[in-house]
Amino acid sequence: MIKKNIQRIIQYRMCLLKFQNLGFEKIFSYTLAQEIGVSPEQVRKDFSQFHLRGNKKAGYLIQDILDQINDLLHKEDIHKIIMVGLGNIGQALIKYKGFANRNMQLVAGFDIDPAKLKKTCRIPTFHSKEIPAVVKKENVRLGIIAVPEAAAQEACNTLIEAGIKGILNFAPVMLKTPPDVVVQNISVCGELEALVYVTEKDKQK
Amino acid sequence: MIKKNIQRIIQYRMCLLKFQNLGFEKIFSYTLAQEIGVSPEQVRKDFSQFHLRGNKKAGYLIQDILDQINDLLHKEDIHKIIMVGLGNIGQALIKYKGFANRNMQLVAGFDIDPAKLKKTCRIPTFHSKEIPAVVKKENVRLGIIAVPEAAAQEACNTLIEAGIKGILNFAPVMLKTPPDVVVQNISVCGELEALVYVTEKDKQK
Repeated sequence: MIKKNIQRIIQYRMCLLKFQNLGFEKIFSYTLAQEIGVSPEQVRKDFSQFHLRGNKKAGYLIQDILDQINDLLHKEDIHKIIMVGLGNIGQALIKYKGFANRNMQLVAGFDIDPAKLKKTCRIPTFHSKEIPAVVKKENVRLGIIAVPEAAAQEACNTLIEAGIKGILNFAPVMLKTPPDVVVQNISVCGELEALVYVTEKDKQK
Repeated sequence: MIKKNIQRIIQYRMCLLKFQNLGFEKIFSYTLAQEIGVSPEQVRKDFSQFHLRGNKKAGYLIQDILDQINDLLHKEDIHKIIMVGLGNIGQALIKYKGFANRNMQLVAGFDIDPAKLKKTCRIPTFHSKEIPAVVKKENVRLGIIAVPEAAAQEACNTLIEAGIKGILNFAPVMLKTPPDVVVQNISVCGELEALVYVTEKDKQK
């Protein structure tokens, strides 16, 4: 369950930044709770679990909590990431400049299609058979899967055999992984389907 | 809270498809729970809330539950979507072919940059000032925000004024919206940070 809890901490951070930009210096668990869609008790429980300290009665100091969250997320280290799949999503992620702000570095991209490897690219690209060698050489623990659905499980198996421990999966498929590997799925269609359902419900009210 | 619940239903569907592909015909709430990372009680509660019926003691019939979930998500309708921002993420989504399988249709793209509007594109593109007219003409309720962080709130305001009720937001910022508008955030960096935290924790064990 720790994955869901740390995801909430990351949501709190986004929320704290929003209120800081609006000029607030303090925030109550009630406000954070309302923004994220959980109970104030959940906020206080999460803060306690991750040892985020502050004065809950007088309001948490926003900058102080932000600093504590950044410490928690080991912001001082650079975290190396590799990506399998150099199609549309893969190319968009390679061009994305936001990784550096979060101390993340996309160190290499892989594909089985020689045509995709020929494209000019901001990061080194290799045939997927080179995954184990690059993971070992660069000491990488995180991988992104951005291949088509039918190729996702094989890409996942290759990453795991190479020693990857955390996978961000864009393929619309539930991957089979051993217990020591953590997968996070990003499903654009799934999120849109949820939005359709929720907004249709509202319409019927 | 209904948004989180329907997101779990969509996760159950992905999980049901996985077990169906593995040759299973029935599944227990215990197995679904384990896959998603919730309790079996939560699975049964969710099934009950969304009126998904089956024999929980003998195992749910996978195909039957899949059919019920598809009915629930109004799979027969076509849901129109517009997108603001024709940068890297926007272009990748336009090229993505998976929307049609889920009865979703990206009907138009918008940007304030004339250079981005000149690119050849599979969908009609317009200057962002045309958003209200297109939303009205096409009767659209869903929008995707794929603009830079600094432009996201303005894009959001324009969508809301035009009548959009559900927003999928790729910008790494918490949007301010009225209570009748639902926002779902997709944060690639946030998900990677959560994976870093969880896998580092495992390493320290």
